[in-house]
Amino acid sequence: MLMEIEQFIAQSEGEWRSMRSGHSLAFQQFEQIISHLAIKILDRNDSRIIDLLKSNNISDGNYISPFHMKWESETDWDHNHSSQISSGSTILIPFPKTKVNGLLLRSQGYAEPIESLSTYHFLNDGTFILNTPYQKTIAEERIWFLSEKVRSRSSVIYTDKRLGIIQTSFTSEIKLSNRHENA
Amino acid sequence: MLMEIEQFIAQSEGEWRSMRSGHSLAFQQFEQIISHLAIKILDRNDSRIIDLLKSNNISDGNYISPFHMKWESETDWDHNHSSQISSGSTILIPFPKTKVNGLLLRSQGYAEPIESLSTYHFLNDGTFILNTPYQKTIAEERIWFLSEKVRSRSSVIYTDKRLGIIQTSFTSEIKLSNRHENA
Repeated sequence: MLMEIEQFIAQSEGEWRSMRSGHSLAFQQFEQIISHLAIKILDRNDSRIIDLLKSNNISDGNYISPFHMKWESETDWDHNHSSQISSGSTILIPFPKTKVNGLLLRSQGYAEPIESLSTYHFLNDGTFILNTPYQKTIAEERIWFLSEKVRSRSSVIYTDKRLGIIQTSFTSEIKLSNRHENA
Repeated sequence: MLMEIEQFIAQSEGEWRSMRSGHSLAFQQFEQIISHLAIKILDRNDSRIIDLLKSNNISDGNYISPFHMKWESETDWDHNHSSQISSGSTILIPFPKTKVNGLLLRSQGYAEPIESLSTYHFLNDGTFILNTPYQKTIAEERIWFLSEKVRSRSSVIYTDKRLGIIQTSFTSEIKLSNRHENA
């Protein structure tokens, strides 16, 4: 059975330029940033994969398409947000349960820079949805392709128990190349 | 059979404050705007509904929840885009075909200010997707609720035949009130 996540990651592999807008709802503040993003599928036995599994005491070998993601901001017009992370990288390991859902282990999360375990599923049009509980927040990200080389990514960060919404964001990503630097 | 569009429009009715970010992909330009949005369900026999149906030679009476939408920008920090429409209103008439899809007639379109006929459908998580062919462009909008009183709206404007992408946008909308001014 071909897992939808395999096709999704294969289509995502490569170098991307990303335009991201953040909306802080309570303060009605915008932030915007242009970044460079590199996604590279790793060998199943890459030592970084093995280490991440070990550090989480995971012996389940049913993962597919583990990958590395690296980002670096090119410009940042919002100097009020000095906490903005300007570069980083993370290792991601998908554990499919069915064709359309599963778990995703990340060495560094999106909303908080800690290891995270997300659940993911695909909607019936191929939209990828990722839910991640963090220590103080819950993040939902959704990613969908507008064309072969353009994808959209939205996120929402909820307070604990989804009682409030802290921030939403939207990213438009254009593929620069299928090639990638060494991860 | 309860149409999904009825529930969607009922949840959308009211006054909203909207934060919108636009991404021009070719030029890597951002634009951002805060607007006020008012959505009001109209009586089936409102004269504006009857007029719009007549002007399109539509005698099909199988429409439900026709509504009025009115928007006005509060701030616009992007003075390079003088073409930005700062206020407007439109009448929308949904013609469901099945529980989850149908047609939507608008007196004024989104990507071009002309009457438009869109197809809509709902994804399996309730995300509303609207496709509209215009004279020179094709627009896809998607709207989903993050909570009862917060909704997200994304759009992409394709060139004719979907060969290129002109602009994407993302809007975060917070409900101010279920009440509405007179439409």
